Amino acid sequence: MNLVACIGAGNVGRAWAIVFARAGCEVTLYDSAAGAVEQHALPAIQQSLRDLAAAGWVDDAAAILARIHATDSLPSAVCGATYVQESVKEDLATKRAVFAQLGQHAPPETILASSTSAIPGSQFLDAAAQAERCLVAHPVNPPYLIPLVEVCPAPFTTPAVVDRCTEFLRRVGQQPILVRREVPGFILNRLQFTLVAEALHLVGEGYCEPDDIDKVLKHGLAMRWAFIGPFEVAHLNATGGFAGFIDNLGDMMRTLARDAKTDYNWGPELVAAIHHELAKKTPVEQIAPRQAWRDRRIMALRTHLADAADRLGE
Amino acid sequence: MNLVACIGAGNVGRAWAIVFARAGCEVTLYDSAAGAVEQHALPAIQQSLRDLAAAGWVDDAAAILARIHATDSLPSAVCGATYVQESVKEDLATKRAVFAQLGQHAPPETILASSTSAIPGSQFLDAAAQAERCLVAHPVNPPYLIPLVEVCPAPFTTPAVVDRCTEFLRRVGQQPILVRREVPGFILNRLQFTLVAEALHLVGEGYCEPDDIDKVLKHGLAMRWAFIGPFEVAHLNATGGFAGFIDNLGDMMRTLARDAKTDYNWGPELVAAIHHELAKKTPVEQIAPRQAWRDRRIMALRTHLADAADRLGE
Repeated sequence: MNLVACIGAGNVGRAWAIVFARAGCEVTLYDSAAGAVEQHALPAIQQSLRDLAAAGWVDDAAAILARIHATDSLPSAVCGATYVQESVKEDLATKRAVFAQLGQHAPPETILASSTSAIPGSQFLDAAAQAERCLVAHPVNPPYLIPLVEVCPAPFTTPAVVDRCTEFLRRVGQQPILVRREVPGFILNRLQFTLVAEALHLVGEGYCEPDDIDKVLKHGLAMRWAFIGPFEVAHLNATGGFAGFIDNLGDMMRTLARDAKTDYNWGPELVAAIHHELAKKTPVEQIAPRQAWRDRRIMALRTHLADAADRLGE
Repeated sequence: MNLVACIGAGNVGRAWAIVFARAGCEVTLYDSAAGAVEQHALPAIQQSLRDLAAAGWVDDAAAILARIHATDSLPSAVCGATYVQESVKEDLATKRAVFAQLGQHAPPETILASSTSAIPGSQFLDAAAQAERCLVAHPVNPPYLIPLVEVCPAPFTTPAVVDRCTEFLRRVGQQPILVRREVPGFILNRLQFTLVAEALHLVGEGYCEPDDIDKVLKHGLAMRWAFIGPFEVAHLNATGGFAGFIDNLGDMMRTLARDAKTDYNWGPELVAAIHHELAKKTPVEQIAPRQAWRDRRIMALRTHLADAADRLGE
């Protein structure tokens, strides 16, 4: 697939444009707000590419930038595209209107993928003609640094489209997983927010400080989750593998999970208290440079993980 | 603190012995099973030290091993110790009996810490004389690789003991956090098992495959959690910091967390199916070498994280 259209040029759409252009695709980038692409998106993309180049992650930032083309009409953006990635506002009516246009103007075989995180695809993908080529491809932001993509078909999406989409995402360097049928929040955000909800409960009830939650992850759980997920962690934690782990600790797991308060009713005071603690380390006006630091750390981590997998095995 | 006693020489006790001896302490290692220390624990410790030396993590494995002393009676193990780490079987009666002995034979100022993960300290620490110097110091296994330790006082533990214990653990290279009051599973296992329970629900209901859960962590969530925890992730994901993140996504978080099925009733079929998938990659007879691989990967990851923090900031 050589021509990819990115519809919506906010943070998510810009980041997708980098993914596709970095992989060698020509990319059209369209936003309904006049001038948004030239005035905001392209300069931001240029800065991101500079950061990627500085970290040794891309060789020729100028060539990548040259493959991203600002386009001021949706029909011309998708004309000739073999893959379309929609990343407009998370609003049902807006998504439906955009998919109606995509269905009308994109070639009939073109895959139409949505970045939605909050709205089930079945609620708006059917606004497009040939809705069977539509599906969700939900990225983790920014996708040029974090490779996981959750591919989720609607009930009317054909399996061949799911396969083509997954294969394409793999080819541009992502790590797609298949969410077999719709579930609110897909997989990643459900796992993330379930853990965060219990963390809010523990802090809200005074068992520990906000910083302790972060320490538990970075000095504890993520020491393994960075290269083996939680099921493999369990498999390697018992001589009998996963089944042996459950024999040993299944009752404790069940008890603790049932005792979790994922419906904990956190309120504005708790949010303010946690914000206050986090802002001591990173005041709000320092968030932008700290984001750039985070991204450098992610790049260094991925370089390490690839190197460690080569050197020590995967 | 120069003399540390490790009571119980299973996996946890052996690993603690390495932590303390690596930091320069003299260590007595005692187990109630006759010959267990000489025949099983010391050879295993020697192997672990060899692996640590091979990865460049310790300089002089022989000197560390020479600081670990097999001891065949509990009174002589704790005589003169300034810190005792108990890691015997997770059984209430056994723990109570051991703490009664520790209270009787350890010097009165000695900190008596338990590695328990499953039993609240208040149920057995009071079996010791001067129970106010007793508390829980729950490690992540193996603590010589994973630094987090959950320090949890019983209601009768004095604050000065908590401070001394925390300071000592920091001095031997660990990352202690304080669990202010008892809660089943402390913090790490509550967070871990809450996430795993929702993962079991998602796999059990056919939304995704077991391997997809592991991919969501290693290619998604842990890309950030390895160096910033979930609260800092949220703080850096909105221009308004944590409070801004909650303004944007709080409703979605609440909805997804309430929709989580942490009380999902997984049964033996699901466990067997997940075990079967994991065993395709790592058959049960390959778990021991795979554990050694995991430990090498953890060492490499920690070396990377320390280097990245130096080079790019923490």
